[in-house]
Amino acid sequence: MIIIMKSQATDTQIEKVINWIESVGYKAHPSRGVERTIIGAVGDNRDKAVLKYAESLPGVEKTMPILKPYKLASRESHEGNTIVSVGSIPIGGPDFVVMAGPCAIESEEQLLESAYIVKKGGAQILRGGAFKPRTSPYSFQGMEEDGLKILDQVRQKTSLPTVTEVVNPIDVDLVESYADMLQIGARNIQNFALLKKVGHARKPVLLKRGMMTTIEELLMSAEYILSSGNPNVILCERGIRTFETATRNTLDLSAVPVLKGLTHLPVVVDPSHAAGNWRFVIPLSRAAVAVGADGIIVEVHPDPEKAVSDGAQSLKPERFYQLMDDVRAIAKAMKH
Amino acid sequence: MIIIMKSQATDTQIEKVINWIESVGYKAHPSRGVERTIIGAVGDNRDKAVLKYAESLPGVEKTMPILKPYKLASRESHEGNTIVSVGSIPIGGPDFVVMAGPCAIESEEQLLESAYIVKKGGAQILRGGAFKPRTSPYSFQGMEEDGLKILDQVRQKTSLPTVTEVVNPIDVDLVESYADMLQIGARNIQNFALLKKVGHARKPVLLKRGMMTTIEELLMSAEYILSSGNPNVILCERGIRTFETATRNTLDLSAVPVLKGLTHLPVVVDPSHAAGNWRFVIPLSRAAVAVGADGIIVEVHPDPEKAVSDGAQSLKPERFYQLMDDVRAIAKAMKH
Amino acid sequence: MIIIMKSQATDTQIEKVINWIESVGYKAHPSRGVERTIIGAVGDNRDKAVLKYAESLPGVEKTMPILKPYKLASRESHEGNTIVSVGSIPIGGPDFVVMAGPCAIESEEQLLESAYIVKKGGAQILRGGAFKPRTSPYSFQGMEEDGLKILDQVRQKTSLPTVTEVVNPIDVDLVESYADMLQIGARNIQNFALLKKVGHARKPVLLKRGMMTTIEELLMSAEYILSSGNPNVILCERGIRTFETATRNTLDLSAVPVLKGLTHLPVVVDPSHAAGNWRFVIPLSRAAVAVGADGIIVEVHPDPEKAVSDGAQSLKPERFYQLMDDVRAIAKAMKH
Amino acid sequence: MIIIMKSQATDTQIEKVINWIESVGYKAHPSRGVERTIIGAVGDNRDKAVLKYAESLPGVEKTMPILKPYKLASRESHEGNTIVSVGSIPIGGPDFVVMAGPCAIESEEQLLESAYIVKKGGAQILRGGAFKPRTSPYSFQGMEEDGLKILDQVRQKTSLPTVTEVVNPIDVDLVESYADMLQIGARNIQNFALLKKVGHARKPVLLKRGMMTTIEELLMSAEYILSSGNPNVILCERGIRTFETATRNTLDLSAVPVLKGLTHLPVVVDPSHAAGNWRFVIPLSRAAVAVGADGIIVEVHPDPEKAVSDGAQSLKPERFYQLMDDVRAIAKAMKH
Repeated sequence: MIIIMKSQATDTQIEKVINWIESVGYKAHPSRGVERTIIGAVGDNRDKAVLKYAESLPGVEKTMPILKPYKLASRESHEGNTIVSVGSIPIGGPDFVVMAGPCAIESEEQLLESAYIVKKGGAQILRGGAFKPRTSPYSFQGMEEDGLKILDQVRQKTSLPTVTEVVNPIDVDLVESYADMLQIGARNIQNFALLKKVGHARKPVLLKRGMMTTIEELLMSAEYILSSGNPNVILCERGIRTFETATRNTLDLSAVPVLKGLTHLPVVVDPSHAAGNWRFVIPLSRAAVAVGADGIIVEVHPDPEKAVSDGAQSLKPERFYQLMDDVRAIAKAMKH
Repeated sequence: MIIIMKSQATDTQIEKVINWIESVGYKAHPSRGVERTIIGAVGDNRDKAVLKYAESLPGVEKTMPILKPYKLASRESHEGNTIVSVGSIPIGGPDFVVMAGPCAIESEEQLLESAYIVKKGGAQILRGGAFKPRTSPYSFQGMEEDGLKILDQVRQKTSLPTVTEVVNPIDVDLVESYADMLQIGARNIQNFALLKKVGHARKPVLLKRGMMTTIEELLMSAEYILSSGNPNVILCERGIRTFETATRNTLDLSAVPVLKGLTHLPVVVDPSHAAGNWRFVIPLSRAAVAVGADGIIVEVHPDPEKAVSDGAQSLKPERFYQLMDDVRAIAKAMKH
Repeated sequence: MIIIMKSQATDTQIEKVINWIESVGYKAHPSRGVERTIIGAVGDNRDKAVLKYAESLPGVEKTMPILKPYKLASRESHEGNTIVSVGSIPIGGPDFVVMAGPCAIESEEQLLESAYIVKKGGAQILRGGAFKPRTSPYSFQGMEEDGLKILDQVRQKTSLPTVTEVVNPIDVDLVESYADMLQIGARNIQNFALLKKVGHARKPVLLKRGMMTTIEELLMSAEYILSSGNPNVILCERGIRTFETATRNTLDLSAVPVLKGLTHLPVVVDPSHAAGNWRFVIPLSRAAVAVGADGIIVEVHPDPEKAVSDGAQSLKPERFYQLMDDVRAIAKAMKH
Repeated sequence: MIIIMKSQATDTQIEKVINWIESVGYKAHPSRGVERTIIGAVGDNRDKAVLKYAESLPGVEKTMPILKPYKLASRESHEGNTIVSVGSIPIGGPDFVVMAGPCAIESEEQLLESAYIVKKGGAQILRGGAFKPRTSPYSFQGMEEDGLKILDQVRQKTSLPTVTEVVNPIDVDLVESYADMLQIGARNIQNFALLKKVGHARKPVLLKRGMMTTIEELLMSAEYILSSGNPNVILCERGIRTFETATRNTLDLSAVPVLKGLTHLPVVVDPSHAAGNWRFVIPLSRAAVAVGADGIIVEVHPDPEKAVSDGAQSLKPERFYQLMDDVRAIAKAMKH
């Protein structure tokens, strides 16, 4: 942490800041410049957030953190890229991975039909929600354990590894027993009780960035899982909230190269939720490949007109096959 | 829901939309204008979100919801204002209420000293966190049940009703047994598992708006609690995330009169978390009274320099007394 | 500027950064810590923006500016508060000032009637637009010079000083010859050609913050005017653009105490444009007083139903009188 | 415009709204539903913005616009895609176009060297700024007419068509006499005086979306140019302002397919300004091709370390050649 004093700060004020830094267990390194004094606070024996208080001390202009607040998620702590295996499918390696399936599991027929489409299109992982976080208490909330059982049956029939969301810490063990990867949804990105709990799971975690979450906060949420003992975290950009209303959210594709620079964890993109409309899913999927993501997760439904959730952004089979063709063409061009 | 067709939409496309509306259980009311056709979808027998799919049908330009998605939280469902009692203190009535205390409970001495300051200043409710949702896994996470016990002891010694946060559905019963009001923090505003759980509690709930939560979504989250059976919900504006970085968040004081127009529930303001700096807490508290809020919740600490959490935005005792003087003066002027 | 090296930065990389800093005319002050090296770049002989390039050099993690980029607008350059006189009315002193009038000048009758309402209510300055920046080319664009002449006549009849917007550098001399204060609208906050031009005017300037302008950028735009020679700038918060759509913009009242801490210039609030609805104008005006603004600028129209622009947010006469009563009561309480 | 009445609206209130609609020159089409009455306002004889006032009438819940506010920019007014020629280079047709060059023109040597790099890399259009809108009055403001002369000389030597920014209406004729395309920068997107002026120019206009501009507003600004008589407008997405600070702005690549659905005008992407760092320019350029843009505009500098403006986001020659290779590979894959 660097503490910048005001240009008019007095010697007594500077002295007081130095004493305070040392009283909370840090070492102070003042550096007196022509225009103002800057004081470094060095140490690691207590929570860094404590130092933020310095902004309340007389004569202090502002504080600026130097070190990144995450450690295990950082490239500095891990050489090379982490490859996370979902069932037998590696994510974060040379091959682009597509996860696809319906927003919500509605019946065995619906999920099985979806899985065959997913497989026919050449995608590698099946998605499907059994616990659905919905803005309205009057909307369908998911089939819960019955949905998980269907997911398990379809996995057995199709050999597709599966990913499904968990929303309550109490359900983590249950979901883990049925699925190959646990998804933490955007609305739970700072549900720290849930993050700690999946940090103790043995299955990998797909961590979706929240609509309001900075890239640094996303990495701090990953840090919760990593520091609880689970090293298998995949980050997912799925759109952030901005003033623009033409799309449901604004897909932040720049986050992919930014994250690739900061962390060794795999990064995938969910174009369906950001767009909110199937028309934009195909071009955004192509862009996700081109920008350097490790994979995408998209919504496919055998009959979107009848979907209980997110029909507007779900792809029909033939459009999904077109998406897969496009994705393969761009992925190939990336290796030119 | 209104469905607006494109100006070039064909009769066949219009017919198809009408048939689809009826296939999902609604009645269609088309209205053919000179420039374009508009189709109303009326009914209440299935989840409204289903209708959003219409945007994917050929010839449809957009859909527009007509009815508000919340019912119990709406002024239309409840005459007059709801007054929520926290212990013996009514919130939402004629008197402005101040809730104050430290961010985190650190020890019995610290909380007791805080409570005496709160009481001496003339505030009515004591706040203090035992479960702390922190961005970093390496920050202090709260004293948990030990903190709740301290909160209970201090309540008994000072007769101040208390409010404290709960972050995990599994802890709701525990927290309810110690505190007079349960707080749902900004990061859990769409933690629907937690909302449903406090919807079954018998204590009132202080529901903080999330940093990226629209006013409509805030009311939908309240709806989760109300529809689970708990009618005692207090809404709290605490700052939203914007591009501005001079304050930690942007306190959206317009939300107070907007909410007062839409809902019968009490509305309070938390100026401490939005500002992130004690210097702004006093003017923003005055503004909260003037804009018509029912109360505020502020952070006070006997010794902010030593606070384990949020010291920079905590008020020292003398500044808190000044805040209380200012708040009383503005509250009196409001009744001019 | 401080340049923070990566923890793995090599001595050669550090050397290269130091050489580069000196090649662009700054002095380098390296400080080697345990975890990483930090290099200060000190000097004032060239544009600071040049230093930002350091982020592209190998081994550099990030750069952080130390000094504020504005000088004349800063409290450090000017003792006490600047009081700007508009005609005979001082803004920035002990008295709260209300500027009011119609959005657009429509006719002499309309403006004169408005002015009598403004005067009867006790407001001190008349507003009215002759050049209207409108989102649509098909909307009324203002009466232009004819409107200015009306403004001048009404000023003579009522002795109210006037403020009106200027949108084109070529019109600055013209507008200055008719009005007591020139307004720069939110959409022109970074129209630097216009800022430089009003910086050469002898009339004061009301500078409205843009919908996406940070507080620092607002002060930089003020710096354009101040550094061109015009010391009489009044800053105006008028709402920023956020994800929330319940109000047209989000009025950032925290900006008032933040600006009061950073600058000596007066700060006023425009609650009409942010709210977009007259219902919210009165509570937000009260809040503007309570938060410490020097004044407000509000839209009043003798007959909002017939207004050619912004009728929805204009106050009818009786509501304006209520606003003035409320504002006076809060302003009085502020001096308690 | 649709006007939605409150569920409790009385017959008298409904009657009053109908009368008001007709008093401002529209026809009212009421439709009484079970839950509430909806009133359509149809007509085209006066500014639509007037109707917004209806929200202030008693009993009205909200108003909703039906028609898009832009006409000439809309797909409904123009069959097929508009192809804009810049010099001899068509934009908006089958071929992806790259515009490249330095942020600011610094000297003839610098621009000529840049142009040779641009040409060698295979880009088609040369960019370079003579009038630079800078946040700080103390930053380099451009070489102005001297810069335009250099631009003209370099065009003659290299046969590359050129694009350069204009910031003041008074300079439009001058800039038009030297350059092949006029650029309107993000900060001037709602500088309507400037838009009208370039609407009378005979050269095409590159219109950059503002940091705060919705897609609808961008199209309204294009409408200003089109309705003034200039049909040759190219839209440019260059990043919007969000809460995320890891990149300078958030590049909204979804805007490309959204715009392609709404308008017949060409759409290009500027990845340099959004990213603020050359490291992200290459992946974002690839993504711009993949998402379906008609071209990109990027910053290239023979020696970014010495650039007077935006050095951090400028590409060195060898990186620019790599970008061109990548862009060609993705563009080819798009035609698979």
